[in-house]
This record gives sequence, C-alpha cells and structure tokens, in this order.
Amino acid sequence: MKKKNKKIRVTFLPEGKKVTLSNPIELKELIKNSSINFSFPCGGLGICGKCKVKISGRVNPLTLKEKKLIPEWIEKGYRLACQVRIEGDAKVEIPSSGVISELKFLTQGLGKTPQVNPGVEKIYLPLPSPSLKDQLSDVTRIKNQLIKKGYKDLSISLDLVRKVPTIIRKSNFNVTVVLKDREIIAIEKGDTRGKKFGLAFDIGTTTVVGALMDLDTGERIAERAILNPQVIHGDDIISRISYIQSNPGGLKKLQRIILKGINQVITYLVSKAKVKRDNIYEATFVGNTVMQHILAGINPVNLALYPYVPAIQDSISINSSKLGIKINSGGKVYIFPSIAAFVGGDTVGVILTTELHHMKKGVKLAVDIGTNGEIVLSKEGKLVVASTAAGPAFEGARISQGMWAQEGAIEGVKLENGEVKLKVIGEVEPRGICGSGLLDAVSEFFREGIVDRSGRIKPRNRQKKIWRERIKEDDEVKFILTENKNNGYIYISQKDVREFQLAKAAICAGIKILLKTVDLQEEIVEEVLLAGAFGNYINIHSAYNVGLFPFFPNARVRIIGNAASLGAIKALISKEDRQEAELIPSLASYVELAAQPYFQDILTNCLFLGESKPP
Amino acid sequence: MKKKNKKIRVTFLPEGKKVTLSNPIELKELIKNSSINFSFPCGGLGICGKCKVKISGRVNPLTLKEKKLIPEWIEKGYRLACQVRIEGDAKVEIPSSGVISELKFLTQGLGKTPQVNPGVEKIYLPLPSPSLKDQLSDVTRIKNQLIKKGYKDLSISLDLVRKVPTIIRKSNFNVTVVLKDREIIAIEKGDTRGKKFGLAFDIGTTTVVGALMDLDTGERIAERAILNPQVIHGDDIISRISYIQSNPGGLKKLQRIILKGINQVITYLVSKAKVKRDNIYEATFVGNTVMQHILAGINPVNLALYPYVPAIQDSISINSSKLGIKINSGGKVYIFPSIAAFVGGDTVGVILTTELHHMKKGVKLAVDIGTNGEIVLSKEGKLVVASTAAGPAFEGARISQGMWAQEGAIEGVKLENGEVKLKVIGEVEPRGICGSGLLDAVSEFFREGIVDRSGRIKPRNRQKKIWRERIKEDDEVKFILTENKNNGYIYISQKDVREFQLAKAAICAGIKILLKTVDLQEEIVEEVLLAGAFGNYINIHSAYNVGLFPFFPNARVRIIGNAASLGAIKALISKEDRQEAELIPSLASYVELAAQPYFQDILTNCLFLGESKPP
Repeated sequence: MKKKNKKIRVTFLPEGKKVTLSNPIELKELIKNSSINFSFPCGGLGICGKCKVKISGRVNPLTLKEKKLIPEWIEKGYRLACQVRIEGDAKVEIPSSGVISELKFLTQGLGKTPQVNPGVEKIYLPLPSPSLKDQLSDVTRIKNQLIKKGYKDLSISLDLVRKVPTIIRKSNFNVTVVLKDREIIAIEKGDTRGKKFGLAFDIGTTTVVGALMDLDTGERIAERAILNPQVIHGDDIISRISYIQSNPGGLKKLQRIILKGINQVITYLVSKAKVKRDNIYEATFVGNTVMQHILAGINPVNLALYPYVPAIQDSISINSSKLGIKINSGGKVYIFPSIAAFVGGDTVGVILTTELHHMKKGVKLAVDIGTNGEIVLSKEGKLVVASTAAGPAFEGARISQGMWAQEGAIEGVKLENGEVKLKVIGEVEPRGICGSGLLDAVSEFFREGIVDRSGRIKPRNRQKKIWRERIKEDDEVKFILTENKNNGYIYISQKDVREFQLAKAAICAGIKILLKTVDLQEEIVEEVLLAGAFGNYINIHSAYNVGLFPFFPNARVRIIGNAASLGAIKALISKEDRQEAELIPSLASYVELAAQPYFQDILTNCLFLGESKPP
Repeated sequence: MKKKNKKIRVTFLPEGKKVTLSNPIELKELIKNSSINFSFPCGGLGICGKCKVKISGRVNPLTLKEKKLIPEWIEKGYRLACQVRIEGDAKVEIPSSGVISELKFLTQGLGKTPQVNPGVEKIYLPLPSPSLKDQLSDVTRIKNQLIKKGYKDLSISLDLVRKVPTIIRKSNFNVTVVLKDREIIAIEKGDTRGKKFGLAFDIGTTTVVGALMDLDTGERIAERAILNPQVIHGDDIISRISYIQSNPGGLKKLQRIILKGINQVITYLVSKAKVKRDNIYEATFVGNTVMQHILAGINPVNLALYPYVPAIQDSISINSSKLGIKINSGGKVYIFPSIAAFVGGDTVGVILTTELHHMKKGVKLAVDIGTNGEIVLSKEGKLVVASTAAGPAFEGARISQGMWAQEGAIEGVKLENGEVKLKVIGEVEPRGICGSGLLDAVSEFFREGIVDRSGRIKPRNRQKKIWRERIKEDDEVKFILTENKNNGYIYISQKDVREFQLAKAAICAGIKILLKTVDLQEEIVEEVLLAGAFGNYINIHSAYNVGLFPFFPNARVRIIGNAASLGAIKALISKEDRQEAELIPSLASYVELAAQPYFQDILTNCLFLGESKPP
C-alpha cells in the first residue's frame, strides 16, 4: 500500500526550531515563511554567494550557480540557501553571522547634549468630583483644570474619550494628563510624573538603531542596534523596490517586517531599562527616503523610476497604534522630512546634529556613509546635498567573506614585516571582515604593492617574497588574511577589491562632483565630518591612502558617529530641534550627480587607488 | 434507531426568511441573531405586551405573563415573542408594524434656507509633470499648486498619501482636490467639480432621519426616515443603557446596530438620488446625548447614574472610515456638542434652527417632543434648557395599539354626533394609533365627558348614550375607536389614557417648572415653537384642551417640524452655522427639573386633564 502524505520534518540549527511540511518546498520560501532571521543579500537570485548554510538530509542536487560561487565550501557540506529545495527530512545549520543580533552601537555622537524640552508634557491633576451642582462632562472637567493651568485649545482623540470615564473613576478623580503639543494623548491613574520616555530610531537599509530616552532628563537609558530584517529581501534599496514591484503585497510585507524588527527592539529596550511600554509616548524616525516610505506603508516605486520623485517629502505625524508601533496606544510617531528621492530624513538628521545650516562663515562637508553615501556641503549655512550609491560593500555585503560589524568581524588590518595583524571585534576567532577591515586591507595591499593603482592584485611571482605564500591563484586571485578552523581561509579576492573600488569611487567622485558643481575647490573646505556605521570605525590614514575622499589640504577630518540617529534623538527631546528639522529641507538644494556632464569622467578617475586628481 | 440532531426549520412571514437550527432556542434570541427587524419595546422583559407575533408549530406552552397581558389575542394564535421558545419546526408571522420601514418625513422645517458655504471645497488642479529639473514629491507638487491658489498650511492623512502616486499618474497629472478646512481629504482623477454631497442625520431614540444634501447648491436631494433599529433592545434611553450595563459587549453591539441602520439609509439615499457614495465627503449628526455617546462608541452609563454626567459634551470630529460610516474613505463625521446629560446635540440643533440665541428682546420657548422632551427658553437670547422624560407614548409605544406614524396609523380622531371620524396615514385600513391620534382621542374623550378631569374613563352606565356601545368593560375599561377585520378592535384603554397623562404631564410640568425656576410667568412668552416627530402632526387645539402645555395667553404656537434635523443640515452646509453650533452650549444654562423643590407638586398637578393651574 502506497504511503501518502508522509510529513517532511526540517530542523533549523543552532536554534533547534522544527518545521513540519506536507510537500517539498524551496528552502528560501521555508525560511521566509518560518520567520527565521536569515539574510539573502542579493534577494535570493543566486548571484552573491553569501547565503551559505550547512545542510544534511534529502534535498535537490547542487546547482551550477553553487558550483561556480562556492566551490571550496561544497565538500564541507555547505549549500547556498537560495538554491536548495527541501525534498525530505533535513537539518539546516544557519551560520551565526546570518542571524540578526546586536551590532556594535553606533551613536557615540558629537558630545553635545541638546536642551531638554520635549513636546510631551505630564500634568498631575486632582479633579473636583461631579455633583448635581457640577454636572460637567468628564472631558470638560479635565480640560477646565488644564485651562486653569494655562493650557488652552486642547484636543483629545475619540479612542481616549472612550476610556476616560473608567480611568477617572478608578483613580478617584486623581489623574495625570499627558499632553503632546495641544493634544491630550493619555490620561493615567494617580500621579505618574517622572515616567516619561521616548524612542529615537534610525532605519538604515542595513541597520536599525534604536535609543530609549528619558524625556525628563534627556538621558539615553538604553540602546540597541540590529540588522534591518528586510535584508532577507535584498541588501540595497533597489532590490527592496524590485521585490515590491514583483510581489503582490510586497510593500505590506516589507512594512510588516520592519515594524516587527522595530517592535523587537522596543521589547528589548523596555525590558533592559525596566520601563513600561505605556510610559513611552513618542517615537521619532530617520531613514533614507525609501526606508521611510516603506515604514509609512507608501509605495516607493517612483523613487527608482525616472525622474525619481518621492510620494511625500514632508514629515509624517501619525498615531503609534495606527502605524503599529507598540508604545502607549495614544503615542505619536514622527517620521522626518526628506530632501529628495535619495537624500532622506537621515541626512536631515545629520544636518540637525552637525548644525551645518547654522554656519555663519566658511565651508564644511559632512559625509554619511551607509549603503548610500549622502554628502552635505555647507557654505556659510547654504546647503547643497547629493547622494551616491556606494552599495553595501562597506557594510560587508557583496564581499566574499564580508560581514556586518559584529563579534568575529575583522575591523582592522595591518601588514608588517610579512605578518598580518588583525583587529577582531570581541577579540574572538575571526569569522569574516567588515567595512573598516576591508578598507584597511586594501590600503595596506596598496602600500605594500600587493595591488597596483588600478586595483589589480599582482600575480604571485611579482609579489614581494614575504607575501607570496598568502597569494592563492585558483579561479581568481586571493590574498589570505588568516585561517579559521571552522570556516577555512579568510581572504580578500580580486572581486572584493573591485567591489571596494566601486564603493570608494562612488563616495570620492560624489564629493568631487558636488564641489565642482558649486564651483568650489578642495582647499576651501575647513572640516570634513564623517558619519555613519562604517565611518565610525575607519582609519582615516587608510581612507586617504586609498582615496576614499579627495585630499583636503586645509581640512580637519572628524568622525562623528551616527549623526542621523542623534538627529532623531534631538528632534525627540527638543521642540526647537523638531522645528529645525522641519525647516532644513527648505534650506537645502539637491544636486543630481549623474546628470552632471563630468560625472562619468570623474567617477572613472576615482576608481584608481590613491589620491585621484581631477580629470 | 434514535434520530439525532434533527434540524429545526423556522420560517418568518411575511418576508419568507428561513432559518435552520440544531437546537431549541428562545425566539427573542433567534430574532436578534437573525437580523430580523422587530422591536421589543420593554427590552423583552414581558411587561409591555407589545411584541405580539402569530405562531404555528412546536413551541413552549403559554406563560402566565401572556395570559395576563394579551388574553384577547391568544385565541387568534398570537403569542408574545419575548415569551416563546422554539422547540421544533415553526412559522412566525411578524406584524408589519414591527418592521422598520419608511416613516412620514419629519423635516418640513422653518422655510429659511441657510447660506451655502460648506467646509468642503473642490479645486480642479492640472499639475506640472515631474522631470529631472522638477523632482518635487507628489504631495508637494499638489500643495504647491494649491499655495498658488491661496491655500496654505494644508495637511493630508497618511492613508491618502499612500494613494496619491497612483491617482496622479493614472489621471495624467490632472486631479481634483477635495479640501475640508485645511485638510486634503480626497484627490480624484480628472475634473470632478459639481459632485459634492453631504449627509445630515438626526439620531433619535425612536427614529433616524437622514438627508442627502448637494453641497454646491444647498439643495436637499433625497431624504429617508426609519425607526431606530436599536429599539430591539428597549424603547427608551434608560432601557438601552440597562442593556449595555447588563450585556458584555452591549455597547459595541448597539453601536454596530445604529451604524448598520445609518449605512442602510445612506445606501437608500445614494441609490435614490443616483449619487456616488465616494462623492459624499461629510456627515453631521445630532442626537440626544445617549444616542450620540453610543454612536461614537462611548459608554453612556454615567448618564443614567447620579450625578448624571456625560463622558464628553464637546463636539466630536472623526474620519468616516474610522467610525464606519460608508461615505468617501477620507470623509469626515461631525457629531454635535451637547449641553447636558439629557440635553444633547439635537437641542443644539433646535436652537441653531430657531436662532433663539440671537433674540435681542422678548421671551420665546421651543419644545422638542420626542421620547424625551427638551425645553429651551430664550429671554433676550439668554438660554435656559431642561429635559423631561415623556417616554415613548407620543411615538405610539406602551400604548395597547400604539404604533409609529406609519401607513395605517390613526393620526387624527374626531367625535361628532355619536360618530368616530378617523384620519389614517395613507388612507388605508387602520392598524393602530400614533401619538397625534392618541392626543386627539384623549382630547375628544375629555370634551365629550367620556373621561373626567382625573383621566378616568367613566363606567358605561354613566356615559352619554351615543358612546355607550363603544365602551367595553373587560379586565379594564376601553373605548372602541373602530373595528379592523384583521386585528380586531382598535381601542384606547384606561391604561393608555394613564400613559398619555404621564407623558403630557411631563411636558407640561417641565415647561412650568422651567418658567418658575427663572421666575417668569406664562404671560410673558410671545412664541412657542413646537418641534419633533410628534410635534409635527398634532392638533394644537387638542394640545391646549388636554393641557399638554400651560396656557400662554399672549403666545403664538408654531409647528416647526424636525428642527434638530434642520440644525444638522445647517451645520453641514454652512461653516458659519457650524461655528454657531460650537458656541451654543456655552450660552445655555441647564436646569435639573427634578432637583427643584416644587417639582413633585407641579408634576402631580399636571396629571389632570385640562389647563392645569399652578399649585
């Protein structure tokens, strides 16, 4: 007798999560459906070779793509998750680097604390009890007491009105009212002053950074950075938009994913800081324009289509419960205004933090390096902004053994007397290399003559003797940094150097084109402010050595950490800063770099390593 | 073999609706669950004897309550629906008077048309197409064109932002923008000017009246009145509140019921007027405070508990889609402000219509007679208001053969030379008697000496000869008005006269107490304005004859129709009137009649028929 419908059992390691299936399924689908945190950097197209998993059990045979992309991993039992079809019981081992976990926190900031003057206020209000001689409604009873304290023209949502009768009677007419601007957003039993919190989020293409703030003191009481869980559907904004375009319901799905990630961060923060979720009344968000569109549930597709226009560039204010952010149900969400399709609220945040718009004299430059690089030039407070697509190489993606700046990532490389000295996050066994390590490595290769100015890794026989044994010449040339017992060699390949060159050329050319467009020379720049996750850890000597930016003979280069995130914090804890954020987009002119006639020349020129001269 | 789970089939006539059950069930539950429009005037407690249905099939035996309340109906196959348990297949015939249907429309109004200046505007807007030189966001593109036309500081909801990119591209950048005050509430393809509609609703305890208005011309293009479908859970506000208190989820259920009724009215109106639902942008609502609370989903329980305070007395503005009113998804709902627990937005509407607050000199009185009677006194524009619980007798409830002012209702009665002359709505076979008919009947009884001043129907042997044969002395004394082939006699019983006396005493005493409280005499009143469903059809001679109100020697009495509903219309089509509505509650003082020391004396005195002297 034929056995029908035998169940398929799949176990995911190291978590041990078990899934039972009735039918064979693509592993990619299974991972997505089972809420396994795992990223497909190229969106599962089988081109990046990054979604390696160890598999045993009944699966489909190896594909050509796997044989081409990960030949050295196959014998160790690895497959590319995007190429696997589960056909019977199987075990899937997910390497820990694919799991979303805490990143090194990126908000060391500028050190300047904004004035604490948040839009959220708490007022303790003992109310007179109603009587036949005082039959005022509950809402008017509250409003009248607030009027006595000088608060006028107050509004209250119907959702809250519905709760008022119960709250004020349960609290014996002693309540604390929470005001946001002129709206009563919460009414709480008894005296709850001193418990007033807010959240500031930076939603990057690659990372999500959240800070829990005490709105009374302005103190940052907890913080958390995770990988943006949307990476499962592609590692840059264009692949996210493609996903939305080619999947019905794709926008809602990506929105749900980011909301889930944000709410996980909130859960972590409230639990770590021992704060009640209901005592969080506001959350501010910065992000690039695409991330902000998706967060708000707005289709970003026109951002990727000529002539690249956002649906909205104004800020968005909405109730937390309407968006699905799990804080006080009357809480507010503020999403920053954007400047252009590729210069979003994160750049507004950088400007707010650096106060470039307040400069009275001189010229300064801020560069926020992420998956995109946003460049802000201020000449006496007049702002010109541009965006350049660096790609995710600086964040470790599209690099053979690239990884995010997590434990186990090589973040610094030094070549000395034939030795390779590595700095590893967490001082553990290295598992891969992150952006700053890649920059160091290429810089050192260039200094030691391992690569030439064009970025070519010289053939083994033309290398210095001390480095020769580290050069492997398989299907492509590689430099072995170190050997790791579990994962084998950790190396930089020729393709990795090329990816790096593309990324650094984008940043360097972006800056040069922007300066040229406004008719300024590098000499006039007096300060370069370097912001962003990658910018936070880089060695400035390495950056100059490879030509990550043009040479500024008169400029001080300062690393300012996650300035976008700090902008979100400032707008959370200061009404004045919020107003500034609203104003900034109107002060900035956007330059479409690719539309400049010298774009291609300068970009090509910047591909060379070393200080690139203007063409 | 024992047959298990035999299905029970129940057929409802005259609709023919069939319901299949697995188990026996109370008929009351079945009617509620099956959305059969049928009212239980006392909330199904078996005390009013009004929920008569004709039943054949397997049901429980007659109860004591039925034997006491409807002895004369039992042999004709009638039962009280609230006392019946369905135990097997059955047929249930619902008398048509219990079915919600169109009522005589009640908004003949004051004849004065307000200025047309609604808050909703339409602006046709050809937009410039975006280009590399004009990368403005879609929303800013629209706002900038509006700024050119003088509209500033505009907001737009996130829900609408999400739709903007598709709408403006599908319409080739030719759109019509709908503004409500400073909010963009809709963006439509092409030029849709000239299609701009609104709704004005009066939500009474007993009736729901809706009018569809053309917001360009101010014309009333369709209207509809139905019974409030909440009557299924009791015929006055106190029984509705009791239902909420004693049933978990009762508030949500009553809210759903009224929303469903409102949406049915809208469906009727748009289909009758051939208007698109999406071209309706606003709906205004008046109602008593309890109806308004339930409509907004606010628990009204404290309105019935000492010291009788509303949750809210301010107006409520909310998105139609959030409340569940099926008009344009960006449309707005405006619920009138209230004055006190029992003086609601309907009274504000009456004041707005009568403009009593604008009187420069003299004294006028407006009385809105519904299930409650609201009284407004204006002395030189200074307003004093009160409420008196008339009960639903004037609307036909709690009267042996009472019915709403529908086809078949006796609305006028005249006794002449031993003959009874009846005026029947629709000039059909009479089925029952409505409020104005009851008033006429009692007035004629009093004039002819059939009842004495105390309201007692004299014994048969003490009646004039011409009326004797119409007096029946069964368990209680009755006067037979006519004989109807289907339903038997149509009569007024002693109990009916008593119910009438209670209702008229409430109104008359309310007016007297209010005048006394502000130290005024009847002589000073120069006009009495009579509003409301009942007020619309009454014979003023009858009203004076029985003492429905005190004698005003110097006053003209005017019938002004549904002034509350007209108030809702005014606030819909005129911004200035909306502002007036907001202002009115602050101009009115509320008097709690029952708290006055002479309350009981005056009320008792007013129970007598004929002009009642002050005690």
